[in-house]
Amino acid sequence: MGVSGVGKSTIGELLSQELNMPFFDGDDFHPKENVLKMSNQQPLNDDDRRGWLHTLNKLAIKHSKENGCIIVCSALKKSYRDILNKQIQDHSKWVFLEGSFDQIKERINNRKGHFMSSELLTSQFDILEEPDNAIKIDVSLTPNKIIEMLKKELINKSDFGLFGLGVMGKSLSRNLARNGFRLSLYNRHVKGSEEAVAKNFKSEFEELASAMPFDQIEPFINSLQKPRKIMLMVNAGHIIDSVINDLLPFLDADDILIDGGNSNYKKTKERYDYLKSKGIHFIGTGVSGGEKGALMGPSIMPSGAKDVYKKVQPFLEAIAAKDANNLPCCTYIGPEGSGHFVKMVHNGIEYVEMQLLAEVYVMLKALGHQPDQIAYILEAWKETANSYLLNITIDILRKKEDNDWLLNSILDKAGNKGTGNWATIAATELGVPSTMISSALFARYTSFFKEERVAASKNFESTEKKNLDISQETLLKAYQFARIINHYQGFNLIQKASDRYQWTLNLSELARIWTNGCIIKSDLMEGLVPVFETTNNMITYEDIIQKIKFLKPSIKKVVSEAVLNELPIPNFSEAINFLNSFAVANSSANLIQAQRDYFGAHTYQRIDDASGKFYHTNWETN
Amino acid sequence: MGVSGVGKSTIGELLSQELNMPFFDGDDFHPKENVLKMSNQQPLNDDDRRGWLHTLNKLAIKHSKENGCIIVCSALKKSYRDILNKQIQDHSKWVFLEGSFDQIKERINNRKGHFMSSELLTSQFDILEEPDNAIKIDVSLTPNKIIEMLKKELINKSDFGLFGLGVMGKSLSRNLARNGFRLSLYNRHVKGSEEAVAKNFKSEFEELASAMPFDQIEPFINSLQKPRKIMLMVNAGHIIDSVINDLLPFLDADDILIDGGNSNYKKTKERYDYLKSKGIHFIGTGVSGGEKGALMGPSIMPSGAKDVYKKVQPFLEAIAAKDANNLPCCTYIGPEGSGHFVKMVHNGIEYVEMQLLAEVYVMLKALGHQPDQIAYILEAWKETANSYLLNITIDILRKKEDNDWLLNSILDKAGNKGTGNWATIAATELGVPSTMISSALFARYTSFFKEERVAASKNFESTEKKNLDISQETLLKAYQFARIINHYQGFNLIQKASDRYQWTLNLSELARIWTNGCIIKSDLMEGLVPVFETTNNMITYEDIIQKIKFLKPSIKKVVSEAVLNELPIPNFSEAINFLNSFAVANSSANLIQAQRDYFGAHTYQRIDDASGKFYHTNWETN
Repeated sequence: MGVSGVGKSTIGELLSQELNMPFFDGDDFHPKENVLKMSNQQPLNDDDRRGWLHTLNKLAIKHSKENGCIIVCSALKKSYRDILNKQIQDHSKWVFLEGSFDQIKERINNRKGHFMSSELLTSQFDILEEPDNAIKIDVSLTPNKIIEMLKKELINKSDFGLFGLGVMGKSLSRNLARNGFRLSLYNRHVKGSEEAVAKNFKSEFEELASAMPFDQIEPFINSLQKPRKIMLMVNAGHIIDSVINDLLPFLDADDILIDGGNSNYKKTKERYDYLKSKGIHFIGTGVSGGEKGALMGPSIMPSGAKDVYKKVQPFLEAIAAKDANNLPCCTYIGPEGSGHFVKMVHNGIEYVEMQLLAEVYVMLKALGHQPDQIAYILEAWKETANSYLLNITIDILRKKEDNDWLLNSILDKAGNKGTGNWATIAATELGVPSTMISSALFARYTSFFKEERVAASKNFESTEKKNLDISQETLLKAYQFARIINHYQGFNLIQKASDRYQWTLNLSELARIWTNGCIIKSDLMEGLVPVFETTNNMITYEDIIQKIKFLKPSIKKVVSEAVLNELPIPNFSEAINFLNSFAVANSSANLIQAQRDYFGAHTYQRIDDASGKFYHTNWETN
Repeated sequence: MGVSGVGKSTIGELLSQELNMPFFDGDDFHPKENVLKMSNQQPLNDDDRRGWLHTLNKLAIKHSKENGCIIVCSALKKSYRDILNKQIQDHSKWVFLEGSFDQIKERINNRKGHFMSSELLTSQFDILEEPDNAIKIDVSLTPNKIIEMLKKELINKSDFGLFGLGVMGKSLSRNLARNGFRLSLYNRHVKGSEEAVAKNFKSEFEELASAMPFDQIEPFINSLQKPRKIMLMVNAGHIIDSVINDLLPFLDADDILIDGGNSNYKKTKERYDYLKSKGIHFIGTGVSGGEKGALMGPSIMPSGAKDVYKKVQPFLEAIAAKDANNLPCCTYIGPEGSGHFVKMVHNGIEYVEMQLLAEVYVMLKALGHQPDQIAYILEAWKETANSYLLNITIDILRKKEDNDWLLNSILDKAGNKGTGNWATIAATELGVPSTMISSALFARYTSFFKEERVAASKNFESTEKKNLDISQETLLKAYQFARIINHYQGFNLIQKASDRYQWTLNLSELARIWTNGCIIKSDLMEGLVPVFETTNNMITYEDIIQKIKFLKPSIKKVVSEAVLNELPIPNFSEAINFLNSFAVANSSANLIQAQRDYFGAHTYQRIDDASGKFYHTNWETN
């Protein structure tokens, strides 16, 4: 593309020979009416052009399915390019031949037998809307030099870089490659433990045939088309910062780094600001789905500057899972840090969903069931409480090794990688009572003190127990109750953060991209998409109110019975305790305020003084 | 004090005239035996000196109760000075007349009729142990100049500075003044809101007669004896940093800043390091007891460098509460930051103790009792569960205003000032399941959403309730159970931090200084002092094991009944759920580990492989 006389045909034809690709001059495809008009010296208007541009677009689509082609066309307006680009935006490459008015006027006038009026050229420059995402070429260079540069950019350069080939990095790479993107793959070289990782990985999978493997940073960076798009899939924490500093010397302005790891949202904001000061863009992205999700389609939660996101959107949307309406489970979340925040809360909700299933398992075991029987019971729960985590739990419960269930051999010390931890800290800092996430986190922490637990189990041998009087149906209802409270608390934490940081997040979109690809996908999540279209506070939604009221007697029964039987059910307990604490018009916090005022003169407000004035009482003088 | 010939008598006599105080030459108080020995040219040994030094000490004590006196004595060894200083260490002032060997030899030789052998003077310099905490005077100055300097240091300079005269700063000032310390008091000048605060405060209380008030930093600093000891009683957070930076230009090396506010322990460590780089000492100190405790005797938790602590110890110990054995409720906690850490956990324990009383109130109210009846019931609980917080709760429940209880008019939105918040974050970061602190914190947070609560109370009106079947005795037992778990979790958090940061904290000493002066003083705390002498893990202590087992049926009953009756009792619930989760040899965390391995390949360990090896299973292929 470029203004008339800039040399599009010359360069296009040369490139066609060099790349062995068919060449088309756009002007040859005008319909008769247009040719007639032009021959009558009448200028074309946008209506005249529309059909012609669609013709060129069809031509491009046809060849994009074969070996590609080269088309030249002035394509001065963005609206023209949008038509030309339809359906091929992920695969098309734009070359913008660029020169100043005087430069081009001189070129034209130097051509044998050509003369162009200044007026005509001026009008071309007037309507020119420069493209964002094109390879820009200075036409004052020699054609040979231009062809050399274009070959480098178009042929030898990748669309997208993947930095770090751990479990998630590998899966995302294969997913991207399957979607037709040409990749550069990087993994560091660590003698003895990480050698030729990228190279070996490439050779392992057919879909990576066109990918380029690296274990050196500079050639990796240089292998990418500008503006470069590099997704970092390395361990969260200090490593991200050191990777960024390793990359920086080789990056150019407007290159884009994407952090797809579970980074702390506050750090993402800091990195965004740091990179901005260096002219580099940064997209912090939550990615959920584990190894399999990353490969088959994860749920993706990108955040950062919206215009920058647009440039990586085709890649992320292509690899994302698809929802029930076949829309990608990937959506622009909001300003820097918000993507990692919502991913952190996603994981918090996940901690709770896992812990609730562990507590269900405890109770069904206490009712005398073996793992395969429990799996059988849970199988029936799919009808009303289906979720990915329920499904994998059933698989786990069925897994045998020799004559025993594998589960029975697994050490009961639960690990964590930091997101549940951060979610608890975020709730604490934001003043939001996310009791279930913290309870699920602490349940893992408690499990970790195995030796102290074994000692305590001997010291506190159960004294008086009674029969556990819970039906499977009651348990299922209690489980559903707890899951609703969990989802309420999780989305409420996000909403409160959105208010605090002015992110204006869209909870319904969030629920939608969590309906597939991610670990917490479930029928319940599907149901929340329309709920959040009408309210940000799901427990004010009539259907949910009715459901909670319907399920409440069951959780009361289950918690009461489990406590009497000394079963560890911290998360079920929190669920009902939260509602009992929250749905109270007049709480006992007045006593707390009185105590604080008594010993610390912290003052209190009064229910009969709407002004919010603070009072202090000398409590001792009764 | 100082070597022979340095001019002690001359200066002492001049000073005596100037200050109108009796003067005594120590040499005049030798017993006959010593005089005889000396007249026989026999040198005195330390045994000879002991009785004499005690005589001088008695002389000093006698005069310290009147208008003071001036005593000269070479007092070259620290051990001599320790005897001289007995019982008056908080009030004595040492002046060290200092000169070089040659200087002093020349002075002596210039005296009419005097001659001192080099050998004798050498031996004096050999045994001289220079004092730390004395006013050092260069004897090459003229006597007039020396007297002028001493007058300034002794008469016009204060022992201790108090920076910030809020509720706590004022109470501590009065406490210090009552203990005979001469104070410099500073409060900033804020036009219209804080004007002449220090001056007005001084004029308000008789005990502050000798205190000097300031609202300018430079004269405040210059009014203090060196090394200066300045206690900062300002709001925690950034204000501390800005105050430190305001003070720094006027401080000298070895001056000591004491932060007595509720600062974050991590920040205290940072400030310690920062000030160290400037040559200034820093003591981070927890102070508990509220307004009244600060005035009558708080519990004090100082940390920092131990040798620096020694210099402020007399001040802090003098104002601290006294335990049952009349020892000060003030002890050196450990390295920098540890004092604020333990104060933070103290407050976490306090949050729980308060919340448990609020839940007791909820249940007794649900049983149909009015506040005064509840007070009457709790009065009887003092016998087995006495504590400061129980006592103030009784006062609160009895407080009437017109014809209603004042409590009924207090708005039920509980505030917080950050320490419960930090304690939850610390637990989260340290991997310690402090479930009760976080639960008490979140109960306050929940209360804060008053409008949402009122709306929810309408939507979730209770459906089916039954009679609350709890006796007062059962409730008391459940309360005692929950308090034991609370104290276990609190001290466990401290122990785990001590392990992590290598603080080697002494839990028994900590319990001891929390037996008086502080908000969580209680009979239970008294009982923990000997427990922690034998173990850092109180729930391995036989008496406590028996107590927990004895109380457990009651908390099971109470939680079960309260949940069935939809009463908000999150903290009681956490107490029993914690024990039920912790005293379990084989928990359900094996399922969590299997789930994590399933979706994220996070691996697991096996109970039948003690090597700790990590396993991964492909769970889908059943």
